[in-house]
Amino acid sequence: MSQNAPPAPLSPHIIVDAVMAALSEDLGLAGDVTTNATVPETATAVADIRARENGIVSGLDVARAAFKALDPDVEFTEIAADGAAVKAGDVVATISGSARALLTAERVALNFIGRMSGIATLTRRYVDAVSGTTATIVDTRKTTPGLRAFEKYAVTCGGGANHRSGLFDAILIKDNHIVASGGLAAAITRARQSSGHMLKIEVEVDTLDQLKEVMKHNVDAVLLDNMTPATLKNAVSLVAGKALTEASGGVNLETVTAIAQTGVDLISIGALTHSAPVFDVGLDFQAKTT
Amino acid sequence: MSQNAPPAPLSPHIIVDAVMAALSEDLGLAGDVTTNATVPETATAVADIRARENGIVSGLDVARAAFKALDPDVEFTEIAADGAAVKAGDVVATISGSARALLTAERVALNFIGRMSGIATLTRRYVDAVSGTTATIVDTRKTTPGLRAFEKYAVTCGGGANHRSGLFDAILIKDNHIVASGGLAAAITRARQSSGHMLKIEVEVDTLDQLKEVMKHNVDAVLLDNMTPATLKNAVSLVAGKALTEASGGVNLETVTAIAQTGVDLISIGALTHSAPVFDVGLDFQAKTT
Amino acid sequence: MSQNAPPAPLSPHIIVDAVMAALSEDLGLAGDVTTNATVPETATAVADIRARENGIVSGLDVARAAFKALDPDVEFTEIAADGAAVKAGDVVATISGSARALLTAERVALNFIGRMSGIATLTRRYVDAVSGTTATIVDTRKTTPGLRAFEKYAVTCGGGANHRSGLFDAILIKDNHIVASGGLAAAITRARQSSGHMLKIEVEVDTLDQLKEVMKHNVDAVLLDNMTPATLKNAVSLVAGKALTEASGGVNLETVTAIAQTGVDLISIGALTHSAPVFDVGLDFQAKTT
Amino acid sequence: MSQNAPPAPLSPHIIVDAVMAALSEDLGLAGDVTTNATVPETATAVADIRARENGIVSGLDVARAAFKALDPDVEFTEIAADGAAVKAGDVVATISGSARALLTAERVALNFIGRMSGIATLTRRYVDAVSGTTATIVDTRKTTPGLRAFEKYAVTCGGGANHRSGLFDAILIKDNHIVASGGLAAAITRARQSSGHMLKIEVEVDTLDQLKEVMKHNVDAVLLDNMTPATLKNAVSLVAGKALTEASGGVNLETVTAIAQTGVDLISIGALTHSAPVFDVGLDFQAKTT
Amino acid sequence: MSQNAPPAPLSPHIIVDAVMAALSEDLGLAGDVTTNATVPETATAVADIRARENGIVSGLDVARAAFKALDPDVEFTEIAADGAAVKAGDVVATISGSARALLTAERVALNFIGRMSGIATLTRRYVDAVSGTTATIVDTRKTTPGLRAFEKYAVTCGGGANHRSGLFDAILIKDNHIVASGGLAAAITRARQSSGHMLKIEVEVDTLDQLKEVMKHNVDAVLLDNMTPATLKNAVSLVAGKALTEASGGVNLETVTAIAQTGVDLISIGALTHSAPVFDVGLDFQAKTT
Amino acid sequence: MSQNAPPAPLSPHIIVDAVMAALSEDLGLAGDVTTNATVPETATAVADIRARENGIVSGLDVARAAFKALDPDVEFTEIAADGAAVKAGDVVATISGSARALLTAERVALNFIGRMSGIATLTRRYVDAVSGTTATIVDTRKTTPGLRAFEKYAVTCGGGANHRSGLFDAILIKDNHIVASGGLAAAITRARQSSGHMLKIEVEVDTLDQLKEVMKHNVDAVLLDNMTPATLKNAVSLVAGKALTEASGGVNLETVTAIAQTGVDLISIGALTHSAPVFDVGLDFQAKTT
Repeated sequence: MSQNAPPAPLSPHIIVDAVMAALSEDLGLAGDVTTNATVPETATAVADIRARENGIVSGLDVARAAFKALDPDVEFTEIAADGAAVKAGDVVATISGSARALLTAERVALNFIGRMSGIATLTRRYVDAVSGTTATIVDTRKTTPGLRAFEKYAVTCGGGANHRSGLFDAILIKDNHIVASGGLAAAITRARQSSGHMLKIEVEVDTLDQLKEVMKHNVDAVLLDNMTPATLKNAVSLVAGKALTEASGGVNLETVTAIAQTGVDLISIGALTHSAPVFDVGLDFQAKTT
Repeated sequence: MSQNAPPAPLSPHIIVDAVMAALSEDLGLAGDVTTNATVPETATAVADIRARENGIVSGLDVARAAFKALDPDVEFTEIAADGAAVKAGDVVATISGSARALLTAERVALNFIGRMSGIATLTRRYVDAVSGTTATIVDTRKTTPGLRAFEKYAVTCGGGANHRSGLFDAILIKDNHIVASGGLAAAITRARQSSGHMLKIEVEVDTLDQLKEVMKHNVDAVLLDNMTPATLKNAVSLVAGKALTEASGGVNLETVTAIAQTGVDLISIGALTHSAPVFDVGLDFQAKTT
Repeated sequence: MSQNAPPAPLSPHIIVDAVMAALSEDLGLAGDVTTNATVPETATAVADIRARENGIVSGLDVARAAFKALDPDVEFTEIAADGAAVKAGDVVATISGSARALLTAERVALNFIGRMSGIATLTRRYVDAVSGTTATIVDTRKTTPGLRAFEKYAVTCGGGANHRSGLFDAILIKDNHIVASGGLAAAITRARQSSGHMLKIEVEVDTLDQLKEVMKHNVDAVLLDNMTPATLKNAVSLVAGKALTEASGGVNLETVTAIAQTGVDLISIGALTHSAPVFDVGLDFQAKTT
Repeated sequence: MSQNAPPAPLSPHIIVDAVMAALSEDLGLAGDVTTNATVPETATAVADIRARENGIVSGLDVARAAFKALDPDVEFTEIAADGAAVKAGDVVATISGSARALLTAERVALNFIGRMSGIATLTRRYVDAVSGTTATIVDTRKTTPGLRAFEKYAVTCGGGANHRSGLFDAILIKDNHIVASGGLAAAITRARQSSGHMLKIEVEVDTLDQLKEVMKHNVDAVLLDNMTPATLKNAVSLVAGKALTEASGGVNLETVTAIAQTGVDLISIGALTHSAPVFDVGLDFQAKTT
Repeated sequence: MSQNAPPAPLSPHIIVDAVMAALSEDLGLAGDVTTNATVPETATAVADIRARENGIVSGLDVARAAFKALDPDVEFTEIAADGAAVKAGDVVATISGSARALLTAERVALNFIGRMSGIATLTRRYVDAVSGTTATIVDTRKTTPGLRAFEKYAVTCGGGANHRSGLFDAILIKDNHIVASGGLAAAITRARQSSGHMLKIEVEVDTLDQLKEVMKHNVDAVLLDNMTPATLKNAVSLVAGKALTEASGGVNLETVTAIAQTGVDLISIGALTHSAPVFDVGLDFQAKTT
Repeated sequence: MSQNAPPAPLSPHIIVDAVMAALSEDLGLAGDVTTNATVPETATAVADIRARENGIVSGLDVARAAFKALDPDVEFTEIAADGAAVKAGDVVATISGSARALLTAERVALNFIGRMSGIATLTRRYVDAVSGTTATIVDTRKTTPGLRAFEKYAVTCGGGANHRSGLFDAILIKDNHIVASGGLAAAITRARQSSGHMLKIEVEVDTLDQLKEVMKHNVDAVLLDNMTPATLKNAVSLVAGKALTEASGGVNLETVTAIAQTGVDLISIGALTHSAPVFDVGLDFQAKTT
């Protein structure tokens, strides 16, 4: 994905549903008992959402929705945009309105921005590590249950691209599928026959021998699992552009450059979504509430 | 929390709702197109869920629910229990039944176990680091939106304890609340007056001067924010057992022992839930499907 | 709770969800067949919601949401506020806009106001009956399934306070828990060990002997069940301010004053929510629809 | 409704949805912290649901669903059936199984039985008060938001009958509809024209003159609002069996017999559902948990 | 139903729920990948919804909701109204706003209009075929699962009327009910006794002998199943206005006029909703997006 | 799709959700008032679901779920399987159990089978019409809102294949996308850049000139819109196997064979889902209920 194009936005109804679930989880039946007890209903405030480390921002539309769910009159002004690089101390958004709404929605908003920006930031580190090569950094299905759309969006904010959304939008044949089908040829044939023509087919291989076998068939992509850079290079030669090549397994910030230099088209990394540390972000009130 | 008692289980309806949402996300409308195309409807299989690193297990009830949602006749046998320490290579559960159900639910099940065990494992490292002190490791509200119950449960699997569930079940007065109330005394008084008598009150302080002011009032706990061990020690003396003392901010595996040795009752750590790397766990088919 | 502070408002998403469920229940698939048949789509009207007896108002935000769900352009003007004492004949709110919206939402709006004001009104009678004492009137978990947040809010409108919201936000150890734990000491110890430090612990006792046993432990509150005023007085002396004292059982408007005069801190009354008669309130059209 | 026929049961999905909502409300994220802390996971118990006053039982299927939602292996044995008259001390159901499940679901189960049996019991008092007449006691739409199906079912358990379910299943033309239509004739004509032929039409009248006007049209029922017994008697004569006659307004246990003796077909009473006090019912453990 | 009165509108919450479900189905997690990739976020456009055949329009409020769900600032201007007859080429609505919103919601909007207008158009053909008779064309419960409200509304747009909404709002006794009750008299008596007085009773008969038997009882309507016009005529004579007569079975555009001329009050036709072909309607961009 | 392989089954949670929604729609609050009044709770029955015309069966799993939702003890025995060709009079399934459950769920079950089998049957007619050619019959996104998964499944039961599930799982560039992107090359480039590598790209063309332009780029499929067989033949030659060719527009049972004989790979037909008449199917009780 070009890092210049803005990421495709999340659908509004997905944002609203997730924000409502998160607020419901945090507010329970009794609501924000501290704020309701101590902050007058009419108090207003202005606050900044501020990065506390360097990184890539993601999740501002979700944060906006959290504040507006508490009070539609809250003003939420984006300073940075999703996908922008920010430095520690930068203000990414300014919010003004009901002090109660700001305080009550704060944690939900920050939980989304922190997680999504953490993913975007880690993705960008991988993207930067492969710059100058033709490899694209892609995500996996190893996402947080319930938040896949948000996490895949965050990957695009970091300059990565998305692998399939789920089990439904592409075919990925693994070892167990091949065994159950009675062999590779049977598996690929069945997949072609019984799935929609708009679905691409990828096959996972562990060795060059398996790869040679797969390349006798017409597949859209091959997943080269846990291969060394040397083997990957041979695999890329062997495929010779007849399918997309995806390296997977054993990828980290130390190994990714060498992997990219083998010529693979794609490098998929579960850690982008399953192990990205939170991005540190806070909400500071500009001045006393009024 | 005693590490001997089994953690209190998650409510069944919370498990079912989250599993259904996760399956819906992964299956979309078209379902597992690869498995449905390549694996016969009547094929059966036996598979092991196996730890690929050392750590603490969490999430087995959720994994069971994922497989059973696809086919209620799948047998799911726990080998380890939630909260148990396992080593790389240990089998934590064995599953047998419909090969399709096993393959289709695999990722959802592993996503839950991986995330929850990751949290349990990180928690245990902190718990171990403070052993011999009286400090309890506790979580925060910095959880993944929609998964708070699961993540707080995972913390207990790791031997940690839970801070408040949300904004609704305890009062935590921070700086902005004090400003909006017109002062500390007013904030505490209002919180007492307008909240239920079964809700505890905690107040956040940054300095010993603030702490002295707070201790003039009757509060249940004080949150000592970003203090050095030396200051924390003074704070603990100052409180003198009249309230619970909670250290927060700047806590990591290097600093936590020293913090615990100051005598604080609780150490809260956002990273337990917002930055725990996934626990590496896989599903291996024991034998060919039949 | 101070009767001067306005009650903490219900979260907007809780109101919307309940109103939508109620409208869905009343409208079914076919909608308001009478109004749709007889009232022109463009007709407008002005109507008053009027108290038909003396009491305390509660539920106006919910009523507003009901009318606005039918037509967002309806104007809803509060005359009285939630928690205000009104007399028979007083207008509590005025509504203007689409005549169809007014007629169709009328019953849902009134059902909420009637029930909630009924609870607020009954609560106020108990609050008034204990005025001059230090006792606070509190509710229980004996609420209408699905409406707990609304009913607990209504109790605060009447000047009462809320006991725990549910099973999750405080510990209340009863006889059966003690038996299952193997004794009082074990029960309290286990509760301390395995529950969050921000949860208070209350223990139910039936006799002064049990109370003496409980007071050997550090608990936050004791529930004094079904005791006579004389026994309650002894219990209060025995507790001597070391825990909150809650009287429960056999409380009615005849007995509550004597109970309050025993010095108990709290008097919990299930009838506030499970047996409050509806508050009589109606919607009168000011003039012919136009 | 014949008091001999068992009431038509509630649809299973309506029961499940309401029970899940109620449990979710009571359990929150953290669940039953007291029971989980104090009662071993493997403990079992046997308990009785016992009436603590005389009355009519309603809600046993709902209670069963509450216990089974916590643990499907709980055994729930009905002793009395919905609609049965019980005396203080009678056991209405016996439950055995997981002690945790019994304790955790207890309040939700009792809240349903208490409210529903309260409605059934009050209904039966009205039904008994009109015995020997031809009047049927019916409910109204003044029900608890979200629980209409349960409350209308409870009315049938008490021997009453159901008026329309909502705005969608019958036409009831009131004063405001007549005004908006430009007159009674227009209102009835429009209602006939634009509503389904299977919907009955009832018209509300306040005076005999209005009734005479209405009877010039073919309507299925007339609602005689707030009339004295003497006027009601005249109204019944005037209608002469050409429509069902329904008395409404000013009905209580003192007045209902006289109203029934006027010969009206139906007496509708909002208090059945909006002001029935709870029926006192408790859950007693038969023996120590094991 | 008079074809002059506008059809009673669908309840807003029913529209929103169905539109959200349809958008969710079409957008999945990844959204409209084509539009998001190719159309700039700030592009705007104007488009016409245009009939591509002659017929009756239905579903414009639903289409509006679909576009506004994507972007509330989209302007949706109705040119024709629901129930209006349009000719091929007529514009029924004009939409302007975000080009992305227009493209993304297009299919959902057209799917609703196409299906609903298809039903309205087929209904109108039947209504026209019986013009000059006293028969009313009515629908059945043979509707698309989940869309009954929309389809019954579309029938009214075509000039038809609605039979009962579901199993809950009228009694229709068929052969199996009679068998299970132990005879016709028992079935009718039980239905009267145990159902609300506002529910009408219809009985299905196959022969004139059965009809004679039914007419000994007081029923509101008789369903004359699969009778020839000659038999229907006899049936209408036999009923003699004492109940509504409904012809059902074997009705198509060839037979409906003869059936109507027998004097039956109602002709119910499952095909209106289960077999109406889509109405051909398209969305044309007026000009290049800007 | 091979007609020999059984169609991939619908996910269980999709079936349950749709069945619950359909039952809720049909049962409302009051349930099946006719059956509850006339059929004893303990009555049992055996019934056959029987085809009343020749065609292809689809929807039996959904029907089973409908009966079991009412009573899990109902036995549902498939005689034909989804995808099987049946003749008028054939029994497709036999159901035994609670007579009430059978009667109450009958219409929901038949509505699903009728609609789904109607689609399967129409699809099979198209599939048969192209037999002997290499063309595959595929569906479109012109499906019933809320039922897309069911309708696409029914297409596979009829021997057709599925086009993309929604806007999310494949890229289909139409005229308006090209205009908004500033030209064909830009549109394809952007789609490649910003969408996942596992998504195929199809481009719609109206003329051979447009097709030539498209074939300069690497696309997976071309949608040949509204072309005559002669033009289609030229298009297929021009594409020369470098992309899948899909004919669309103006396809009906008269034209489809000639279209298939042009050598196109796919023929997409909206009518499969938007205009398939219902398949006539009924439920007959084998014998008196007992």
